Amino acid sequence: MDQAVAYAREQDGRFLSELIEFLRIPSVSTAPERATDVARAAAWIAGHLERIGLRSRVEPTDLHPIVRADWLGAPGRPTVLCYGHFDVQPPDPLGLWNSPPFEPTVEQGSLYARGASDDKGQLFTHVKAVEAILRTVGSLPVNVKFLLEGEEEIGSPSLAAYVPRHRRSLTADAALVSDGALFAPGLPTLTTGLRGMLYTEIEVKGAGADLHSGQYGGAAPNAVGALVQILATLKDRRGRIRISGYYGRVRPPEEAERSAWARLPFDEAAFCNEIGTAVAPGEEGYPILERLWARPTLDVHGIAGGFTGTGMKTVIPSCATAKVSMRLVPDQNPERVFKQLERFVRRHAPPGVRVDVRHLASSPPVLVSSDAPPVRAAARSLEAVFGVPPVYVRSGGSIPAVSAFDRTLKAPAVLMGFGLPDDNLHAPNEKFALVNFRQGIEATIRFFHEFGG
Amino acid sequence: MDQAVAYAREQDGRFLSELIEFLRIPSVSTAPERATDVARAAAWIAGHLERIGLRSRVEPTDLHPIVRADWLGAPGRPTVLCYGHFDVQPPDPLGLWNSPPFEPTVEQGSLYARGASDDKGQLFTHVKAVEAILRTVGSLPVNVKFLLEGEEEIGSPSLAAYVPRHRRSLTADAALVSDGALFAPGLPTLTTGLRGMLYTEIEVKGAGADLHSGQYGGAAPNAVGALVQILATLKDRRGRIRISGYYGRVRPPEEAERSAWARLPFDEAAFCNEIGTAVAPGEEGYPILERLWARPTLDVHGIAGGFTGTGMKTVIPSCATAKVSMRLVPDQNPERVFKQLERFVRRHAPPGVRVDVRHLASSPPVLVSSDAPPVRAAARSLEAVFGVPPVYVRSGGSIPAVSAFDRTLKAPAVLMGFGLPDDNLHAPNEKFALVNFRQGIEATIRFFHEFGG
Repeated sequence: MDQAVAYAREQDGRFLSELIEFLRIPSVSTAPERATDVARAAAWIAGHLERIGLRSRVEPTDLHPIVRADWLGAPGRPTVLCYGHFDVQPPDPLGLWNSPPFEPTVEQGSLYARGASDDKGQLFTHVKAVEAILRTVGSLPVNVKFLLEGEEEIGSPSLAAYVPRHRRSLTADAALVSDGALFAPGLPTLTTGLRGMLYTEIEVKGAGADLHSGQYGGAAPNAVGALVQILATLKDRRGRIRISGYYGRVRPPEEAERSAWARLPFDEAAFCNEIGTAVAPGEEGYPILERLWARPTLDVHGIAGGFTGTGMKTVIPSCATAKVSMRLVPDQNPERVFKQLERFVRRHAPPGVRVDVRHLASSPPVLVSSDAPPVRAAARSLEAVFGVPPVYVRSGGSIPAVSAFDRTLKAPAVLMGFGLPDDNLHAPNEKFALVNFRQGIEATIRFFHEFGG
Repeated sequence: MDQAVAYAREQDGRFLSELIEFLRIPSVSTAPERATDVARAAAWIAGHLERIGLRSRVEPTDLHPIVRADWLGAPGRPTVLCYGHFDVQPPDPLGLWNSPPFEPTVEQGSLYARGASDDKGQLFTHVKAVEAILRTVGSLPVNVKFLLEGEEEIGSPSLAAYVPRHRRSLTADAALVSDGALFAPGLPTLTTGLRGMLYTEIEVKGAGADLHSGQYGGAAPNAVGALVQILATLKDRRGRIRISGYYGRVRPPEEAERSAWARLPFDEAAFCNEIGTAVAPGEEGYPILERLWARPTLDVHGIAGGFTGTGMKTVIPSCATAKVSMRLVPDQNPERVFKQLERFVRRHAPPGVRVDVRHLASSPPVLVSSDAPPVRAAARSLEAVFGVPPVYVRSGGSIPAVSAFDRTLKAPAVLMGFGLPDDNLHAPNEKFALVNFRQGIEATIRFFHEFGG
């Protein structure tokens, strides 16, 4: 292991050059005109994996390809599924970048480029860890399967179907995911939970056509008014969701987890400053981190209906829609919650309108025990690299791939991210600190050894 | 008077040809490319008024011209201000017209064209009544002032400023407005009240930028959520507006008025069928006509915020706006209600957001006593023409010009419309029944005599 670590340190400059080459490919998955670039990124990383000694292949999907690569030379040893994604967010607004998003630039110890942290730089830590061991020791202490996708930034539609269909070939004892961040610089972090998601669209229809508010106002259904009433009824004044049965399956965090969170270096004033408000409103009676990580939410993402141009139009709108999603926590079940929502919305629709609740997407919440063997192995690796034991956090977001691994493969997820909270993911000037790149490679080398035993 | 009526009957064919010529001008006031057509319509009607013996002039405004014409040859007699508008609604959607909107066509006793009923056909009844008397008797039993505008369909912005500035030259004892409809075919109708209006825009701002609902959901203000909550709070479940003091100045209709409304031929099932819903929701405890005519309302005309495209985006919106108006009834005051609304909205804004309430426009409600001398004169004229006494109704809409006459000139409005409820105003296949055109001319001739004494 020490040889592998030493090799990685020596080859540091080359590793960086290779990552820069990878980052030059503008693999924006949401832009149809970038589809060939996404395919180029797939081919690039597949070729790279092949060159370092894995058997790799590019598998087409309905949209962007999936890359698979295996090294299965350790029979009897555990298998690690390394997950990552080679697609990136669009770079807009371009004018706010200090250097072009697809011309990676090193400045003050950080590599600036779209995808530097999310996720090309982080997935590359796995690749380089494997290379370092294979080039020095000659064989890995675990079996390794890479599963890399090009649709993470658009919700992983192909992967969600791919995982159950390839359940057998994907079998693993742990899923290693480095698509996240340290809680604070220098503080190694393991994420033990992800919220799930249920994304819906609610449509209200009132009169057969828009009506004149002078002629009909007072005796006609207003679709926007009805939608507004329904949406407002979903939450009470204390921020609690009023859907009956909604909290029935919410598992509160363990007391130990809760008190560990209370010790984290979290600054509420800095949080408010970050989002640009004086307060951080939410469900009463819970600290912010618990609200973000272990409490379910309901947010309206968008609403539209009636006349919204400049000036005035005295129309009673006949139609209105809203996008509404909920972040779900263990042990809530998205299908069950969808039914509860649908029932609630129908029951609270005012007279004179018809309501349609549409299910657009969902993924179940994920919870990993910090006692799971791969998580313990990751903790030991991180402590060895950073000199301090990791903190355990959760994420308020959802990673559809991880939900799929959890549900289909039953493989505990090791969510070991190496980004920083200010890496500007999805924003201009995305970056990845070079120290974190190196620490990521080293921690991954150690993880393979710790878990391989 | 009988001579004038006989003349009008004789000249019926020519009157119709002239109206057709007037209707051929596509004077759509909202379309900038039609501005010259609006000006052509102004010139046409001004020239016509001059030809029949009035002194007329076209007065420019910041937008479309105003036409004035006077006949002041009856000193000591009352003065009637005849109001109408020569602009029309856009004809879209063109595909639904059975004949081209600006090629007037007579079919089954009705004249089909954009503006046939609203308002070129109806204002022409005043013009032809004046002509009939002048050509037969030689002089009118009242003084007559015409005030015709080309911006009614866009809210009369120029007229609202014009009336106070020309208060003296507009002085009159009654304002005659034929821009409305009979309550039912063959049923002469006088409108004794108009609702006022207060049109506002409410804007909510939350976080400094849109936030990711996974990362921040549960501890960040949602501008759409906050706006929805504010809007929902404005009304209770029984359809009552919850703004404190809102109903304080609402004057209930007289018992006699209420019972007269109850006797009107109003069919609730037909009303629901017309708007395309199973019920006609509104404020509990009031019959539909009272809700439409004598109860104030609050309608959201449009709402916008966050992501509303196809698919999903997990954004917590930082900004949301809604257009909200209220129809006001006597004796509510728009300025006062605006202050009440602003206070209510600020008080009910949830934590973490800033709210802005903007006043876009307003006009006060109008109420005319059915005992006012010009209204009594109109009633006698209508009974003479139709053979039955008129019914007294109100209108749920607002006519800014009439509000201005009421407030500035203190002239009782005679709202004597000759259209039919199914004239398709603002819709394809607008029409005006020829019998109503003739009855309108005759009733106006008689009104001048009845009021002139």
